[in-house]
Formats: sequence, C-alpha cells, structure tokens
Amino acid sequence: MTTTAPTPAPSSAARTVRLGANQYGKAEVRLVRVTRDTARHEIEDLTVTSQLRGDFAASHVAGDNSQVVATDTQKNTVYAFARDGVGAPEAFLLRLAEHFTGFAWVDGGRWEALSHAWDRIVAEGAEHDHAFVRTGQETRTAVVTRDGDDVWVLGGLTDLTVLKSTGSEFHGFPRDRYTTLGETDDRVLATAVTARWRYAGTDVDWDATYASVRATLLEAFATTHSLALQQTLYAMAEAVLVAHPAIVEVRLSLPNKHHFLVDLSPFGLDNPNEVFYAADRPYGLIEASVSVEDAPPAGRAWESVAGFC
Amino acid sequence: MTTTAPTPAPSSAARTVRLGANQYGKAEVRLVRVTRDTARHEIEDLTVTSQLRGDFAASHVAGDNSQVVATDTQKNTVYAFARDGVGAPEAFLLRLAEHFTGFAWVDGGRWEALSHAWDRIVAEGAEHDHAFVRTGQETRTAVVTRDGDDVWVLGGLTDLTVLKSTGSEFHGFPRDRYTTLGETDDRVLATAVTARWRYAGTDVDWDATYASVRATLLEAFATTHSLALQQTLYAMAEAVLVAHPAIVEVRLSLPNKHHFLVDLSPFGLDNPNEVFYAADRPYGLIEASVSVEDAPPAGRAWESVAGFC
Amino acid sequence: MTTTAPTPAPSSAARTVRLGANQYGKAEVRLVRVTRDTARHEIEDLTVTSQLRGDFAASHVAGDNSQVVATDTQKNTVYAFARDGVGAPEAFLLRLAEHFTGFAWVDGGRWEALSHAWDRIVAEGAEHDHAFVRTGQETRTAVVTRDGDDVWVLGGLTDLTVLKSTGSEFHGFPRDRYTTLGETDDRVLATAVTARWRYAGTDVDWDATYASVRATLLEAFATTHSLALQQTLYAMAEAVLVAHPAIVEVRLSLPNKHHFLVDLSPFGLDNPNEVFYAADRPYGLIEASVSVEDAPPAGRAWESVAGFC
Amino acid sequence: MTTTAPTPAPSSAARTVRLGANQYGKAEVRLVRVTRDTARHEIEDLTVTSQLRGDFAASHVAGDNSQVVATDTQKNTVYAFARDGVGAPEAFLLRLAEHFTGFAWVDGGRWEALSHAWDRIVAEGAEHDHAFVRTGQETRTAVVTRDGDDVWVLGGLTDLTVLKSTGSEFHGFPRDRYTTLGETDDRVLATAVTARWRYAGTDVDWDATYASVRATLLEAFATTHSLALQQTLYAMAEAVLVAHPAIVEVRLSLPNKHHFLVDLSPFGLDNPNEVFYAADRPYGLIEASVSVEDAPPAGRAWESVAGFC
Repeated sequence: MTTTAPTPAPSSAARTVRLGANQYGKAEVRLVRVTRDTARHEIEDLTVTSQLRGDFAASHVAGDNSQVVATDTQKNTVYAFARDGVGAPEAFLLRLAEHFTGFAWVDGGRWEALSHAWDRIVAEGAEHDHAFVRTGQETRTAVVTRDGDDVWVLGGLTDLTVLKSTGSEFHGFPRDRYTTLGETDDRVLATAVTARWRYAGTDVDWDATYASVRATLLEAFATTHSLALQQTLYAMAEAVLVAHPAIVEVRLSLPNKHHFLVDLSPFGLDNPNEVFYAADRPYGLIEASVSVEDAPPAGRAWESVAGFC
Repeated sequence: MTTTAPTPAPSSAARTVRLGANQYGKAEVRLVRVTRDTARHEIEDLTVTSQLRGDFAASHVAGDNSQVVATDTQKNTVYAFARDGVGAPEAFLLRLAEHFTGFAWVDGGRWEALSHAWDRIVAEGAEHDHAFVRTGQETRTAVVTRDGDDVWVLGGLTDLTVLKSTGSEFHGFPRDRYTTLGETDDRVLATAVTARWRYAGTDVDWDATYASVRATLLEAFATTHSLALQQTLYAMAEAVLVAHPAIVEVRLSLPNKHHFLVDLSPFGLDNPNEVFYAADRPYGLIEASVSVEDAPPAGRAWESVAGFC
Repeated sequence: MTTTAPTPAPSSAARTVRLGANQYGKAEVRLVRVTRDTARHEIEDLTVTSQLRGDFAASHVAGDNSQVVATDTQKNTVYAFARDGVGAPEAFLLRLAEHFTGFAWVDGGRWEALSHAWDRIVAEGAEHDHAFVRTGQETRTAVVTRDGDDVWVLGGLTDLTVLKSTGSEFHGFPRDRYTTLGETDDRVLATAVTARWRYAGTDVDWDATYASVRATLLEAFATTHSLALQQTLYAMAEAVLVAHPAIVEVRLSLPNKHHFLVDLSPFGLDNPNEVFYAADRPYGLIEASVSVEDAPPAGRAWESVAGFC
Repeated sequence: MTTTAPTPAPSSAARTVRLGANQYGKAEVRLVRVTRDTARHEIEDLTVTSQLRGDFAASHVAGDNSQVVATDTQKNTVYAFARDGVGAPEAFLLRLAEHFTGFAWVDGGRWEALSHAWDRIVAEGAEHDHAFVRTGQETRTAVVTRDGDDVWVLGGLTDLTVLKSTGSEFHGFPRDRYTTLGETDDRVLATAVTARWRYAGTDVDWDATYASVRATLLEAFATTHSLALQQTLYAMAEAVLVAHPAIVEVRLSLPNKHHFLVDLSPFGLDNPNEVFYAADRPYGLIEASVSVEDAPPAGRAWESVAGFC
C-alpha cells in the first residue's frame, strides 16, 4: 500500500489531548496444574488474562514506569498463586483481583480465564489415574471485574455447538422489496452458544452452578419448539434465571448457523428435509440480555468483555 | 463431559424475567464489487455486518416475527445497495443505517465493515487494468451506530504489525516478591495495532482520512523513542488527534509481541541484541482511550464493538 | 513489496515444458444429512473433498474443457449421492470413486472426508430425539484413492489431544555443544494425535473398526510408560496393528506439546511437578510409519495426503 | 463419545510389526534476527522446522535415546547458527542440513522455513532506519531435503491472493445428470497461490530468483486470458520454467475462490458482472506439477511436503 503523507492539521495543533480509560496486563497465560496428592492425579488447564486499572497516566504521558506492575510480574503471580491450588476459575480470579488491588495505585482491573476440560482415558476397563483426553467441547469462561471494593463475576461458556433437526419454524416476518426468503415450518436450527451470566454475589458453588447452567442451556435448546432463534435464546436465558437464584442476568450471542436444504430436483430426486448444505458465511447473529426484574445494577461487570456487551 | 441435572430452584420459580438490550442481523456478508465503467476496473472487497435494534420483544417472548426484518433480507439489501456503488465503507454503512431505520419499529442498530485492500498487479511494466493482488497488510474497519436520529461513526484498522529493532527501553517499574524481569535500555518492540477512532460528524473525506491516520500511526510508532508501550500508544493516539480535527477520540489495543533475546552463552557465543525468539503467548496487552478535551459525548458509539470498549 | 521485473532468461526459451501429475476437484463440501425415518433422528456431518485424476492435458495446455467434469458437478454429485444415505465415510467415498471413474477419461482420483461427531442432548432425563450437541473432540478422517481398478482406503483421526501427568521420562540423549536440556525421569507428556491407518481391503466394518482403533490409541497412550515420545508412538501403532487384522500400516504424527515446569524458586516456592507453562511454539514433532511385515504394497495410498507421507 | 473396548484380535497376536519411515525434530522455531552493523538495521523473520532421519529404531522400540539428538538441541542450533547471520532461507537450511548430517547416525532429514517479510516504515518522508511494518502478503517458503550426500532444494510461496475481474471464461465442459453449472464467457477468477519450485542445484542467487519467480507468477496470472484455472496454472508454471534455468519443476496448488454473481433481479435490478458474493466453502482445487523435459529425478525432494506432492 502506498503510504500517504499525513494531512497537515491547520489549526488543530492547539487541541488539548487527555488520557481516558485504560488498562494493561498479561494476556493468555497458559497454566496447567497437576494435583498429585494421591496416585489419582487431577489436572486443571486455564488460559488466564490479567489487566490492571488505576493511575497509570505517568507511564502513558511521560514513560514513567514507577507504578507499572510489569506484565511479566502479573504472569509470575498467576503461576505462583497456582502453587496453592487453582480450584474454580472464578475463585482463582477473585484471589488475583484481591492481590493486585493491594497495590496502592491499582484501583481495580479485570481478570479472565478460559478453562479447558479433560476427561480421564478409559484403559483396561477403568478410568486411568494420570492419563487424560481433552473433551474439546465448549470452553468455560469466567471474568472478574473489580473497581475499588466493588466486584462483579461473570460465568460463561463459548463454542457449545448444538443442532435441532426439526422442531424449528420461521415465518410471519415482514416482506419488503428486498425479501426473497421463503417461509418454513420445518428447518434445521443450529448455533454455537456463547453465554455469559452475571452472579449477584460471590458466595457461590461455582463448579456446580456451571455444570447446572450448561445442562439447563442444552435442555432449553432441545425442548423449546422454536418459532425464531430469538425465541429459543429467550427461553434458554429464562430457564437459566429461573433455575439459578445466584444468577441475575444472562447474555447470549447465538450465530444462526444456516443449513440450507439442497435442491435435488435437477437430478430427479426429492429432498424431504434430509440433505443440507452447512454454510459458513454469512450467518445470522442474535444477541440479547435477559435479566431478573430486581437485578442489582451491572456496574462495570460487562466492560471490555469480548463480544456482545 | 458428564451432563449434570439442573439444580432445582427452591423458591425462584417466582422470579420475573425481562428482556434487556438486544440486537440481531446478518454477520460477515462477503461483498466484492467490480466497477467496470472503463477498461480499467476497480474492485472493492468488504465483509459487512448489519444488526438492528428496536422493538423485537414479541419475537423473543412469543415467537411473533411480524417485526423481524429477516437477516436474509438484510443480506439482500447489502448486495442490492452495492449495485449503486460502494465507495468509502463509512458512507456505505451510513446508507444502510438510513435505510433500515426507515422501518417504523427499528430504532437503530450497528453496521460494521471490514475492508480488504487490493493492489494492481504489475505486468509488462505497467499496472494491469483488471488483475489484482491482495495487499494482505492491515484490515480497515468501520462501525456506524445509529439510535433514532443520533449517529456515530468509528474508523479503524486491525492487524497492522510493526516492529522497532531499537529505540525502546523498559525500566523503573516497581519490584515485588513476584518480579523477576530485568531492566533494559534496548529491546525489540513489536505490536499488531488495532485502532479505532471516533469522528465528530459525518462530513468527512473518509478515504483520505483513513490513509492519513494510518500513515500517522506508523510514523508515530517509528519516531517515538519508547520508554513503555503505554508511552508509544499515547504518542500514536495524540498524533492522530492533533493532525485530524475530524477525529475526537482514539482507542488503541496493542499487544506487546515479546521478542526475547536468546541466551547463546552456553554455546560460547555472545548475543549483542541480534538473535531473538518471537513468542506467541502470553503477551502483554496495553489498551487506552485518548480524546480531545472538548470531545462530544460518545453516546452509544462504542457499544458492542469487539475488543477494548 | 516492490515487484521485481522477471530476470531475462538468456537461452532457456528453448526449454520444453511438460505437464506432470495433476488432480482437480471440489474441496470441503459441507454435507449434513438427517435420517428421519422415525421420530428418533440421526445426523451425519461430513466435509467431503473430491479430486479427479486422468487425461486433463487439453485443459491445461489449451483450455479445452471437454473432459473436465466441473468441480460444481462433483459437488452436486456428493449431495445427490447423500440422498440415498451416507453411512460410514469410507463406504461413501468408495461410492463416489466408483461413480467418477465411470467417466472414460478419469483414471482415478482421491476422495477425502472429515467426519464431525454429535451426541444427543440429554433433556428431561433422556436422550433427545432430534437435538444434538457436537462432541468437539477428535475429527475422524478417511481417504479413498483409486487408480484404475486399484483402490486404497485410509482411516484416521486428528486433533485427539491427550496428556499424561506422570509416567514419562526423557534421558540418555546425546549431548553436544548445543545441548542444554536437562534429563528428567518425570515429565508431563502431551500430544495431539494425528493418525492414519491403511486397510488391506474394503470388506471392513468401518465404524466398529474406527471406534476400536480410537480406543486402542487412547489405551496404549495411557498404559505405555514412556521413555521417549517415539516409544509411545511405536507402542500406539503396534497396539493398533496387533488388535486389527484388517489394518496393515499405521502412520502417526505426534507434536510434543511441551509443558515446562515453572521455576517458582524466585518466589520462595518449590514446584514438585505441579505448576506448568503449556507452550505453543516451537514444539517437538515425531512422525513414523509402522506396518506389519507382510503388508501389501502401499501403491498410491499415501499420495497427496496432508501431513506425514 | 462413548469409548468402545478394543475388538479382541483372534489370531493376529502373531503379527510381526516393524518400524518404517520416520523423522522427528523441532517444528516452528520462531527466529527474528536483527543485523545492526550500521544505524540502518536489517531484520530477518523466519519460522524454522528441523527434522532428522536416520537410525532411530532403538528409541522407538526400546526407548533408548542414545542417538536421539534432542529436539531442544535442534532448536538451540537454529538460534546459535543465526548468530553468524541468516541470509537466504535456502542457504540457512543448507547449513543446518550440513551440520546435522555430521552426526554419524543421521542419514538426512528435511529442513523447512517460512519467511515473513517486512518493509521499512516511511516517517518524516524517508524510510526509517529501525522501524518496520510487516508486509502481510505472501509467505515465502523453502524446503531442503538431504539423504546422505544428495540434497534437494524447493523454493516456494503461499497465500499470494490474486483476482482478475474479467478475462476469464469457463465453458465446453461435459454435462451429465448432475451438471447444473451454466457456461460463462466472463467471470471473476480468484485464487490464493501456493507454489513450490524445485532447483536443479544449489549454486543459485536464492533471493533474486525468489523475487523474479514471484513477479513471473503474478504477471502470468494477469496476462493469461483464462479458459480454465487449469490453463492459468499451466501458463504460470511454464512462465517460471522458461524464465529461470535454475528451476526444473514447479508445483502449484490453486484453490478456485468462487465469486458468484448475485441475482439482483428480484429487486428490479440488473447485475452486469458488478456485484459478487465471495464464497468460502466449498472451493475448486486445481493442482499440478509442470517440469522441463530433461529435469533430473526428484528423488526425495517432495517427501513429507505439506499439500500437493
């Protein structure tokens, strides 16, 4: 690409520029912890991101790093804290948040974890003590945001791919000059679920709640007769909220992974909803927040969270 | 993974659930337009996402789609509008926004484009009329958000990878129990720039401004003697703001792509800042917003924008 | 990048150029088939590639397409054949091979499938009839190569990620000027298995064999006390060959996904093989073919197969 | 996925299993070298893979590593050799090959490099001395294979994406029951070039030849009026061979990146080859080898090379 000379700025040299919101840290620290107290090992596999917020203006404006906790130090801290055990990712991130806000000039920050699940390998008829296979299904996510003494926790998951081969309709939508889509009362509905849910507090059994929310999302997707992906989304979020008092808000981002019925008639064949072309792009994208009526304010819980926010 | 039965919800069945913020549309519509008015063709290559906001509660709650402009219709509209030409992505998105907010129940939405640049192939000593090679460098981005009559435009770019082989130091940072990083007065500094900038209005020469901002970012990166990536970030943003009166805010997300000096001493070799290991993960991540003092409010400009927001 | 003018070729204009091996077709046809004979649906999800070999010189040399079965036609054929059912991917590819070699000028070709597995969603305590969740673990692969009346079948899998938290040593390797690696009698061993196995014939229960090979690979990985990833590889291949008379050769490509013990001593902590950094790159890469002594010749079975061949 | 117990192997326990072809090494060593003899720095950015072949049976069969040059040692060697400079990737790989075959039990191996190109940033009207921007266009590739005293060198490139907006036809192809594709005398032709070329020897100006081949490929793509992508492929390969006496064979793998004309007629609009949908999958895939008539035998040059071989 040809590099163009910057446009001269006639009178704007007088503009006063100021630093706004900022955060910095270490992203994607790959941590694997083996618990080997007994012959039956446990493994935890996380990708941790730590970002600090606070008074870092001097570094930006003058290159003065006297308050910049090095991102390398943040990484070291993640590994050092894992020495005492990891546990639920939400709990681990809360420990990190508590530690880093101990620096006088650190007001808060955000800490995020992806959790990668492993199953035991079955060998000689039994679960093996120290051999594992990665499940490869959804990735569990967690975000802890802290601002002074306020703290918010988001649970979540991503890449949970689901499909219904019937039980999905789509019709009754408005038609304008640009509408060509036909109505259907039987289509394949598929999506890759990205969900995040906000907890009201921190006194939670994180792992049990995660497993239950995951099961609830799957069950609601399966049992909702769908007239629109929007309806399925709402039903999934509602089911999570109704079943989990600890959760006050759910946000879902659902790509509509289109499966188009292939027209086999040129080949003298019918196609009674059996042969589909699974398309990559473009795809529908349905996103919403659903919450309970008395949900406490979200505060900064959703700031700088990837995706719908 | 073992599927866990949902936890029974003792008294929460009485919770009242409500739909909050939501948006939906078609994502990643791949549009290539050839302008062939003369033998010297022009090509435009965009990936467009359209998302609508408005009164879509009936679809979520009851599967009533009478106000759901089908995502397929949104895709069709993108292609139909391209028949009249595309032009600057910001201008094209503004046209889409104007069109879709013409539906009575559509309050607004967000429209986003990635632009993929092509150069002419040089053949037989001259630029070819209709043969092109993709530049492959940065991707230009644009986001238009509309809410009623309010409209916000963000320009941007991503994946502009830059490196300084000297002229970068990092020292003076605080040391605690977990700090092992050494100080340095000469390191490699590399990053992949993701930048977004907010325009004050829409009466802008979008393409010329884009080219100028890109050149300004590169120049500021090159000429800033860096004491911290934060300082480089601020200098880049400031340079853009000073040189472009149409822009009132710049947000940068800069991964610190670490290049570690390889210790060659075990092999009896010195390494005077010449041989480096380029690491993938983890990486530093420095993010900030910089704006002019009299910037108009950002409103909903940054809502649902991927990355730092 | 500056485009350099081609170097003039002094006397080489007289070179005689000829077309060698070639193949063409349609890659990555995304096929999802729903079997809905009963209320309990089944789904099959494949990515199919079809490539033909034969007398296609006229197209290359003169643009004469009279023998070029269009890649679009190949795609259509995949979908049309799926109307009658898919079944094991190996069987489906054999049908395609038989069909396409029916063109007089098509000598043979290669057909490849990736199979993506789905589990039923558990809802209300039972497996759902028509709702599925993608397993996300390994991808099953199959390659059928045909040359005239000769046919070869490769089964396989990729991205089966496994880890042993102990039971792995590495020592006794030679040390030269460039060796710094320490010896260890207890390390984490992790890899993402890519395996392909060659069948002696086509009278095989493809699905049962696949499931059994997969289980054998996992079991052998788990139960082999490893002195080198090479040894584990050989044990895995040998176990497959010993247990499956239909298989005569196994090729494995095993990245050594390094898990480095983090040095926690600067923080006053020990690290008894508990806290690891999982590295991305570089990685070890161990590849080998293992076969039975009386294996029939491989012929063209491995031609143009991605990866180790 | 349910783990199935391995099928018992009735009589096959007696099978004799043997190790066949094998190789091992370190993959994707990320090397950045700065040459800073003067204030005007140069950078070289490579991803290097080293794989050894030889007598490694003891490691596979018995876990005896006394001849296993550790992959970590291979990585160290890459960095140590870079201390003396890198130069053309082909030359650097030849040095590595020469070194590693110095071990008595190493017969040969393969060494591969990806080269990532950088341009100087233009700042204050001039090319900067030590600030660079990654070009992001094609990636240069090189493979050196050695077997005893025999050595083969492949140059190459990948991901060079090109498009012609006219000057491409496709018709005259055979029609069968499954053919629905229409004939066209004006279509968009786009591909992402992966090319590898085999050198007759090693006394070559690698960098100049690379630049010239790249320019030749682009020029031939641009100037060939295409009746089939096969024809364009052949013309590109032929042009390289005619212009470069040092090269005796060219292999090309060209995905046909389909650009489908959008049907705008439902919207009352024509579409005179102006608005296209750029599809992802499936795609055509055209692959061939073209060589000069008196090319020396390829030997092991193409063994274990990714893609078409």
